[in-house]
Amino acid sequence: MTSDGDSHPRIRDVRGLLAAEPVVVAAGAGLLAEAVEAQAVTVERVDWRPPPAGTEEPLARVVGDPRRRQANATALERVLATAPQLVDVRPASDALGLEPGTFLHAGPPIDWSRASGPLRGALIGAVLLEGLAGDATAAESLLERGDGITLAPCHGRGAVGPMAGVISPSMWLFEVADGSADDGRRAYCSLNEGLGKVLRYGAYGPEVIERLRWMSAVLGPLLQTALRANGPVDLGTIIAQMLQMGDEGHNRNRAGTLLWLREVLPALIDSGAPTADVAEAVRFIAGNDHFFLNLGMPAGKLALDAGRDVPGATLVVAMARNGTDFGIQTAGTGDEWFTGPAQVPDGLFLGGFGPDDANPDIGDSAITETAGFGGFAMAAAPAIVRFVGGSVADALAATRSMYEITLAEHPRYQVPILSFRGTPVGIDVTRVVRTGILPQINTGMAGRVAGTGQVGAGLVNPPASCFTDALTALARAVPEAETAGKSSL
Amino acid sequence: MTSDGDSHPRIRDVRGLLAAEPVVVAAGAGLLAEAVEAQAVTVERVDWRPPPAGTEEPLARVVGDPRRRQANATALERVLATAPQLVDVRPASDALGLEPGTFLHAGPPIDWSRASGPLRGALIGAVLLEGLAGDATAAESLLERGDGITLAPCHGRGAVGPMAGVISPSMWLFEVADGSADDGRRAYCSLNEGLGKVLRYGAYGPEVIERLRWMSAVLGPLLQTALRANGPVDLGTIIAQMLQMGDEGHNRNRAGTLLWLREVLPALIDSGAPTADVAEAVRFIAGNDHFFLNLGMPAGKLALDAGRDVPGATLVVAMARNGTDFGIQTAGTGDEWFTGPAQVPDGLFLGGFGPDDANPDIGDSAITETAGFGGFAMAAAPAIVRFVGGSVADALAATRSMYEITLAEHPRYQVPILSFRGTPVGIDVTRVVRTGILPQINTGMAGRVAGTGQVGAGLVNPPASCFTDALTALARAVPEAETAGKSSL
Repeated sequence: MTSDGDSHPRIRDVRGLLAAEPVVVAAGAGLLAEAVEAQAVTVERVDWRPPPAGTEEPLARVVGDPRRRQANATALERVLATAPQLVDVRPASDALGLEPGTFLHAGPPIDWSRASGPLRGALIGAVLLEGLAGDATAAESLLERGDGITLAPCHGRGAVGPMAGVISPSMWLFEVADGSADDGRRAYCSLNEGLGKVLRYGAYGPEVIERLRWMSAVLGPLLQTALRANGPVDLGTIIAQMLQMGDEGHNRNRAGTLLWLREVLPALIDSGAPTADVAEAVRFIAGNDHFFLNLGMPAGKLALDAGRDVPGATLVVAMARNGTDFGIQTAGTGDEWFTGPAQVPDGLFLGGFGPDDANPDIGDSAITETAGFGGFAMAAAPAIVRFVGGSVADALAATRSMYEITLAEHPRYQVPILSFRGTPVGIDVTRVVRTGILPQINTGMAGRVAGTGQVGAGLVNPPASCFTDALTALARAVPEAETAGKSSL
Repeated sequence: MTSDGDSHPRIRDVRGLLAAEPVVVAAGAGLLAEAVEAQAVTVERVDWRPPPAGTEEPLARVVGDPRRRQANATALERVLATAPQLVDVRPASDALGLEPGTFLHAGPPIDWSRASGPLRGALIGAVLLEGLAGDATAAESLLERGDGITLAPCHGRGAVGPMAGVISPSMWLFEVADGSADDGRRAYCSLNEGLGKVLRYGAYGPEVIERLRWMSAVLGPLLQTALRANGPVDLGTIIAQMLQMGDEGHNRNRAGTLLWLREVLPALIDSGAPTADVAEAVRFIAGNDHFFLNLGMPAGKLALDAGRDVPGATLVVAMARNGTDFGIQTAGTGDEWFTGPAQVPDGLFLGGFGPDDANPDIGDSAITETAGFGGFAMAAAPAIVRFVGGSVADALAATRSMYEITLAEHPRYQVPILSFRGTPVGIDVTRVVRTGILPQINTGMAGRVAGTGQVGAGLVNPPASCFTDALTALARAVPEAETAGKSSL
């Protein structure tokens, strides 16, 4: 298979990638900026609003933390050095040691009583798939009672799942490892089911369960055989290439899907499996333009997990939604979630659906934006406006504005139309709070009512409170001695 | 297989697609344009230069021909209504009735004595492939003597060929028909061999001949079986989609190749052919990002052939080069070629090659530009500048400037970054002559010396004389009675 583009340029000096701290930040009227620029001083004009009330003190404390710059550089270097490779396909029971009765879900932790319709629908379907109940009513009742049932976020088990993101023991997962360092780290994601009436959008009818059974019985084992014969598939290079082919990796994965398929295709054909199974698998994958989403997501997860647990770092390492709450995690605050109410996306609707049918934002797929693609790379995928709404100019503006809240330009993920500028990557909590610019996510929309499936796709932002709450926690974590230093704001 | 986008919207009123004749054409200083615009008059500002000396009279005569507007509308309607579909894969002996000893080549007619290195190299290879000589020296000598050898342009036999474009009887061809009208018309093109040392770039070493033999013995028959089982593949929809995926269809065909492969893949796998052959064919196709070029080209040829032979039409229906001459044909002048010296492209070189190694422009592949994609759609494929040179801004500017010499915006081929504006299509001889803007072609570069292969890729224009000569012929064809009418300039 041919592949152009670079093969894993290692990040030698991430400090060179960090956006320089502005010498003069000019907000509001342009007179100051113009006067200062006339004196040859570097000016960064930002779309600045006053920080929300109550954030001045924690913001000053965090930006005054002398550890911050190096901490963010360290965290981001680890993120950008990660070379995600698909290394295996395995059932969740095996890959994650997922116990019967345990169900992973997207977003921050939530229990049944607060779960939204699509998450409930997906859990009902997963209970049916696992044979723990005979019908939907019994499944719902079991989940409500909670006997022998454990719900836990995917993120806490090294996994991610799009939309409801439900993973149960018999589902097969993609396993992604770092090709640049054999450090044993892994990230996992389920196999994509296609569009419409599918489990991740909260549908659980017989056709949904039947498809999942085929995926576990035929597709998963076939992909395992082919991948093991083929060897690891470099996902970072595919993401880099798909951004040059009109995909942004969240709601457009058409090129990514085909690029990935061509890598494993000869091994699939040579797998020794019945020709009919191979043909059906190829039809299923090639006929689903979103198949690669479930490969881009764990690639992003693996990269961002590398940036976790760096004291003083204000880098966002996860953004995820469970359909009720939007949550973020940062490199400087361990596994703590900072949550706020998930918003309803604004976008385009399928068939007869409208805004009233849409559930609030759901899914771990915002890991793509967190990792520097998805909504952050919309300028690379102008055709996506036909799917999520807005104009081509909006798509360009979305990417451009994300440079204001990120720490670097991705060295491998580039936007051709911006003259191959690297995508904005590395969301900085302090930049979000001080500019008031929220991360731009583009996403699918699930039906509000369990069992509905997909109703549309659109654009959405996290609630600002996730970032102000994270800032408060980051401020609390700044050691007392550290605040004597000079502000690097 | 899923496919989005429209499926053959029929052209109901092509007049709506024709660029309106300018009410005021403003060239030179902008004062006039501004003054007129201030009076709410429509102004079209063009990059205008005085027509070349000697063209004023024929230009006036042709634009004064009252048949012209309707003739161009008729021709263009036929071009744009064509829905190219791949309907079969057959050997040239069968598809074209190509006789032993007959060799088709790219561009306008040429004989051995004037043939450039890459065309000579490809002819030598084809003679070896057909078993008419035992080695290259004998093949060259046979071609020089010409005993039993006939050279003819592909275009004259309903075919197109990239670069040297040599087609010999045992080569297999794609056969393209119009899905919108079963009028029996067909266009043909050889199967793409890949890059580097390949026949179309003038290489004829043993590996070239061996690959061609495999293509005739295995690949062609396999594709025939698969395609006949699958049914026709809609090439127009693939071209429309690839333009939304960073391809322009001349030098970037990566998305097109994968989109086409996914259409025939299940039938290939189910073909009943040995698994090893299927795997090898899939590896060959998926590993060659240019495979779709040989499908886009006959799609363009079929569309443009529909526009031929409309008296009074100034539409260009073919641009083609044989490595020595650049030739064009127009809708109003039958099969006559208007030729001038082929230029050496300006671009990027492979390995140790440089400008001195490059042969002048060669190939029928400029049919892509003639049909409204390729170089005319470079704005859709900004990443192509990494292959052909120039900047992203140049790619956008190339497409934008082509609107000035074309009659319409393509209803199905759209450029997302230009807010889904249709590609410029329908080159008008009069617009080229009066603006002095030449069609923008992006192309591969063959080595000057026979046997070399590809040396680079770049940008090139036709010589202006093709258009002034065509204009003169068009002027000569205007009936005397017709010139009394009012000029529609």
